[in-house]
Amino acid sequence: MQDGTHRLARMAAAADVRLPPTPDFDHYPVIHSPRAVEVEPTGIIVVWSDGREDRFNRFWLRENTVASGIVDPATREREIDVADLPGTLAAAAVEIIEGGAIAVTWQPDMVRSEYHPGWLRAMAEHKWHPETDVPPRQTWDAAAMPEPPTFDGPEVLSDAAAQQAWLTALEAYGLARLRNLPVEDGVVQTVAERIGTIRPTNFGFLFRVASKPDPDSTAYTAVGLAPHTDLPTRETQPGLQLLFCKQNTATGGESLMVDGLRAAEVLALRDPGTYRALTTQRWLFSNRHRDTDYRRCEPIIGCDSHGDPTEVRLANFLRAQPDVPANEVEDAYQAVRRFMRLIQSPELVCRYPFAAGDLIAFDNRRILHGRDAFDPNSGARELEGCYLDRDELHSRLRVLARQQRAKVANTPAALGSTAGL
Amino acid sequence: MQDGTHRLARMAAAADVRLPPTPDFDHYPVIHSPRAVEVEPTGIIVVWSDGREDRFNRFWLRENTVASGIVDPATREREIDVADLPGTLAAAAVEIIEGGAIAVTWQPDMVRSEYHPGWLRAMAEHKWHPETDVPPRQTWDAAAMPEPPTFDGPEVLSDAAAQQAWLTALEAYGLARLRNLPVEDGVVQTVAERIGTIRPTNFGFLFRVASKPDPDSTAYTAVGLAPHTDLPTRETQPGLQLLFCKQNTATGGESLMVDGLRAAEVLALRDPGTYRALTTQRWLFSNRHRDTDYRRCEPIIGCDSHGDPTEVRLANFLRAQPDVPANEVEDAYQAVRRFMRLIQSPELVCRYPFAAGDLIAFDNRRILHGRDAFDPNSGARELEGCYLDRDELHSRLRVLARQQRAKVANTPAALGSTAGL
Repeated sequence: MQDGTHRLARMAAAADVRLPPTPDFDHYPVIHSPRAVEVEPTGIIVVWSDGREDRFNRFWLRENTVASGIVDPATREREIDVADLPGTLAAAAVEIIEGGAIAVTWQPDMVRSEYHPGWLRAMAEHKWHPETDVPPRQTWDAAAMPEPPTFDGPEVLSDAAAQQAWLTALEAYGLARLRNLPVEDGVVQTVAERIGTIRPTNFGFLFRVASKPDPDSTAYTAVGLAPHTDLPTRETQPGLQLLFCKQNTATGGESLMVDGLRAAEVLALRDPGTYRALTTQRWLFSNRHRDTDYRRCEPIIGCDSHGDPTEVRLANFLRAQPDVPANEVEDAYQAVRRFMRLIQSPELVCRYPFAAGDLIAFDNRRILHGRDAFDPNSGARELEGCYLDRDELHSRLRVLARQQRAKVANTPAALGSTAGL
Repeated sequence: MQDGTHRLARMAAAADVRLPPTPDFDHYPVIHSPRAVEVEPTGIIVVWSDGREDRFNRFWLRENTVASGIVDPATREREIDVADLPGTLAAAAVEIIEGGAIAVTWQPDMVRSEYHPGWLRAMAEHKWHPETDVPPRQTWDAAAMPEPPTFDGPEVLSDAAAQQAWLTALEAYGLARLRNLPVEDGVVQTVAERIGTIRPTNFGFLFRVASKPDPDSTAYTAVGLAPHTDLPTRETQPGLQLLFCKQNTATGGESLMVDGLRAAEVLALRDPGTYRALTTQRWLFSNRHRDTDYRRCEPIIGCDSHGDPTEVRLANFLRAQPDVPANEVEDAYQAVRRFMRLIQSPELVCRYPFAAGDLIAFDNRRILHGRDAFDPNSGARELEGCYLDRDELHSRLRVLARQQRAKVANTPAALGSTAGL
């Protein structure tokens, strides 16, 4: 296949250095080039080599021009205020220039702007969207998840591809385990900071979960904990939790993980009334200490604007009142009782041992975590943990994908295979 | 007024030590006492001394019983799993006991529970609600806010009542200033930690905003900044921002603050079409550096479930594409251009000088902040800042109110005035 379109695309890719800069630092391969361009009142129309047609708005084009005073060519930060552009702004002329770039001359001020064709096409294809480079979620039950997806800790810490595989599993399934980490102070922080910024709470920058054979504080208890999310008392529960096992010689205390989104799916199918109650009735979650008093009212199953469940919020020990009229309280309790049973059913619970050197990362707004009771006199059990927000994981996944693209683009063979489609 | 009701209430208050414990550590004055109690299938009915009648649900009562194995009397943490209670749970008997407390005997297990009347009444009156002890918001324009509400920094750091006044203004108006703070390292952290836990970001635990006469980096620029929110690229923008002025001898650079909620009100009234566009059309906010790539799509004006505006998200330099069909892009741009003009209009902008030793705290999800351009060769300008979440401010306001109640309750005169109404 050697028609003009493909020659043009290859030429553009090979001549990438001569193309106009883009308003960011990502790599935009030129796979399709403009075949025709046209002015319209609110911008321009581009017809691409594959027949696709896109409209680009005048204000958007103008405020994304890389030039001093508009988008700074060094920092790629926008300097212009869109409110300062004239309301009469219009393309006086548009043309296809070297490498398939597009040049627009603007009236009334006759400024000329140039746009990178790979960037324009990527924007038209919505590659700017936050979901790009973030894998879709896949829900699971106990049968599908006999143990968490597992990766080698030292490899993840030293290799970008291994890190990408680990974080992709974490986003897709809501949990992923690292093994073979050294049992040293600072490990959980080191791993967390490979993802992004740690979110401290009133429990500290890192927190410690420990028991010992001769407990001297209630913090060192050994009771079982039903599956729950941490910090449901906050407007935004921490999106990620990392738990690192420093030692565990106690008998019992298996870890429990439940996919709250799968639980929501199961309920919606089998018991729509309870599902409706849990997605609409708000509950107070409350946690009070001497110097803090955190409270938040939200439904136990949180949905996005399309009504699809995206979040679970529940800790039996922090759940206070239902925020409903008196005649709905009994229904609210019946619904939460059914949900508590469902998230403790063998159908949904992934139960596995937690060994020294293991680190489990999970989405604390999706995965409910718990533990079986253990015998505190049989040995010591010490975990260290911290939180991050979902923003950090998504940012990291995008950066890893961007680095991957840059690597591919700089490889002559890869460049050929991208441009020569 | 010395009828039986008031004698009973006074007696209960005076005998507070004999009343049953409550499931938390707050103080609950007994202002009204139960006059009659009755069993019903899903719980009990209480008729109070003032004629008010309340229903209390069986599961709620039982899981809020302070007793070993239910709510731990020492930690006041819930130990029971509500799903483990029998579905046949019912009050077999209910009676009013000493001090106006209520005792319930439960079937089928004949467990006896006792409840504090002040706590029961407070729960019935929704005093558990997160909004309790958090003052309502009051929107403002430039005429109403010639300068930020101002408090003495050293006094706020040493006196609970002064701190409460400062934080009440911060919540009500969205901004409040401290003056006369020592120009030292660590001040912004000290002040922030009086509120709660600092939220670090990819810009650090604290961040520095500085310019100097001979700038050696683009970070030290002196351009004006249109009013904006910080970190609109995050799912939850930081709720609070603290900015401390360490030095400012430059000419120009006045601070700008705009109440985004007032801007939303003004728009809703004068230009409903633009208001609708800003509350429904989502925009991408994007911030990319070498190791981070934060993106978030949200409307510029965010509303709660009642459709009332609660948040503004806008930074002209981080605003990327509108997430709308191609035929709505022009409308989206027209709407954002109108909003950018509104938030820079003299009607809305509070403009004031920022002097060394001043600290401004503001709700970064409500108040847009900016600055006028300044002459970087005229002097040095150095700010230090940090972020916290709204959760921290609300927690602190509740704790201050709780401490205030405890103080009042321990004062004989105050106790009389509460109990003898």
